[in-house]
Amino acid sequence: MAERPSKGARLKDVAERADVSIKTVSNVVRGQVRVAEPTRQRVLRAIAELDYRPHASARHLRTGRSGVIALAVPELVQPYFAELATAVIGAAAEHGVSVLIEDTGGDPAAELRAACGLSDPLIDGVLLSPRLLDQSALARRERRVPLVLLGERDYEVPADHVLIDNVAAAREATAHLLELGRRRVAAIGFQTNPAHATSQQRARGYHEALHAAGVPYDPELTPAVPDFQRMDGAAAMRGLLALPEPPDAVFCFSDLLASGALRAAYDHGLEVPRDLAIVGFDGIEETQFSVPSLSTVAPDKPQLAQLAVKALLARIAGDPDAPHTTQHATHRLVRRESSGAR
Amino acid sequence: MAERPSKGARLKDVAERADVSIKTVSNVVRGQVRVAEPTRQRVLRAIAELDYRPHASARHLRTGRSGVIALAVPELVQPYFAELATAVIGAAAEHGVSVLIEDTGGDPAAELRAACGLSDPLIDGVLLSPRLLDQSALARRERRVPLVLLGERDYEVPADHVLIDNVAAAREATAHLLELGRRRVAAIGFQTNPAHATSQQRARGYHEALHAAGVPYDPELTPAVPDFQRMDGAAAMRGLLALPEPPDAVFCFSDLLASGALRAAYDHGLEVPRDLAIVGFDGIEETQFSVPSLSTVAPDKPQLAQLAVKALLARIAGDPDAPHTTQHATHRLVRRESSGAR
Repeated sequence: MAERPSKGARLKDVAERADVSIKTVSNVVRGQVRVAEPTRQRVLRAIAELDYRPHASARHLRTGRSGVIALAVPELVQPYFAELATAVIGAAAEHGVSVLIEDTGGDPAAELRAACGLSDPLIDGVLLSPRLLDQSALARRERRVPLVLLGERDYEVPADHVLIDNVAAAREATAHLLELGRRRVAAIGFQTNPAHATSQQRARGYHEALHAAGVPYDPELTPAVPDFQRMDGAAAMRGLLALPEPPDAVFCFSDLLASGALRAAYDHGLEVPRDLAIVGFDGIEETQFSVPSLSTVAPDKPQLAQLAVKALLARIAGDPDAPHTTQHATHRLVRRESSGAR
Repeated sequence: MAERPSKGARLKDVAERADVSIKTVSNVVRGQVRVAEPTRQRVLRAIAELDYRPHASARHLRTGRSGVIALAVPELVQPYFAELATAVIGAAAEHGVSVLIEDTGGDPAAELRAACGLSDPLIDGVLLSPRLLDQSALARRERRVPLVLLGERDYEVPADHVLIDNVAAAREATAHLLELGRRRVAAIGFQTNPAHATSQQRARGYHEALHAAGVPYDPELTPAVPDFQRMDGAAAMRGLLALPEPPDAVFCFSDLLASGALRAAYDHGLEVPRDLAIVGFDGIEETQFSVPSLSTVAPDKPQLAQLAVKALLARIAGDPDAPHTTQHATHRLVRRESSGAR
């Protein structure tokens, strides 16, 4: 950035050139308020012509805030996180705040680095969806940038926290399959790693629903998976279909697992839902379009995003030592063709 | 960030506490070199205990570089861009560089802001996949942060540029359908907006393949779509199936369009590929798992990412006024069930 001129144009110069008010230029630059398209184009042209660049760090020093937050998620290639990121961008834009996204790969060190603000002095605060980062590491992260956790951790985390009730959601999905009269209800998504809170909680909901229906738990029907990807779902389903007594229904802990399971059932010559009913989890867009369409537990992503952004902005503006809050977003079971809905 | 202590721990203090070399701490912090897991955990613990935070802007001032680049894409909810982002993160990590991601929503103003480095002094350079940003806006962006464009623009852009040959790729996809003996080959992805270069180039490849096969162009078979999403593909397919002479094959300009078209064909009672052969574009993961699996044109995303990251790092380290380069990544046509492969 050595080539950037040090004595650059100012907001005032842009406003004069574009023949608009300083406030209008500011609105265009910050994207906070809608500006009529011809005016916006004129301002953008003036910005380009004058080589105007808002000096973020100067603004940052003056106000103490940059208007930029970070969102760290485990994997953007999981559509759930891409959809959640889009919801967060939308919710932040309503407050005039921009979002930079970090893909941690689910690596605890990357998650800790994100929780510390990515070492970026521009970032006002962080929304973190952790996968494996443990409580003690987070607890030792004291007095860093404002942080809100998005996810399923059920421990006492030293941060504000927005989540859905994963146990209840998994219970409802399993109960739905049992109510169809299925009795060999498998679950794909169990994990051997106890730090994987998402898996632990959905497994608990599955157990509770079986118990409530008086259906005994059969460990053969809950194979452990290495991850929540399509190929993991397909491999687990192939294993289940090779059992002497294969399942007649399966609850998958993610829609990607369900997509893989559906494909494996098709390769096995099964008809879904007649031979095998399937319910996924996450409510991602493709579940509406797959053949057959996939039933799924859909967290309310816009609500999750709005609660998380509001909690973070409150923490940024407020007392860093105020007690931490926990808020729940809603979810709903969407019944589609894969579990018998038309 | 007012709460951060001004006189913080230094690298040296962390190294002493963790009983490792300063170089090891640096490796853990920068994530550049693999560090054995127990050692890494010890370093992370020391970092947390001492509240050590690498001061990015100080490092930045000293070296002139932060080791952070930005990637701006139109829409992360399009799996193509999430997969491309993941490939870019992987390619950048090989050079010890971190990536922050910006979702521009395809808005030209957001794309211009990204091309100017997001106003973030931490960002060394930008990879931008523009959707509608026009040449003149980019041309006026002079002497800003180093920039590499990822995408299909065929104009003389004032930046380094990495892309695939979209015309050839679309020609191959269409020719494949014609070689199956189909003669009513539709295309879903035409757009009325001439700034949409992706659409323009794929349309050109479609025309060229028809022409080469001596098949006359029928404008009824190329409905305009508002966007490249699933719902656009489903709506366009429904329109095509309502024609007096519906198509027997369709080339979709994105895999999401193909997913929507496939669902619409299924709702119409058609069997794919017997009644309708389908080829998509992007090579996204779900095409392997859909029922039937989808044929697609797959750009080599890891290669695109590697070429783009290398070009950007060369521009960051090199002469800002050196001539701009254009490099092509490869693509391949993946034949699957939706166009008759087994």
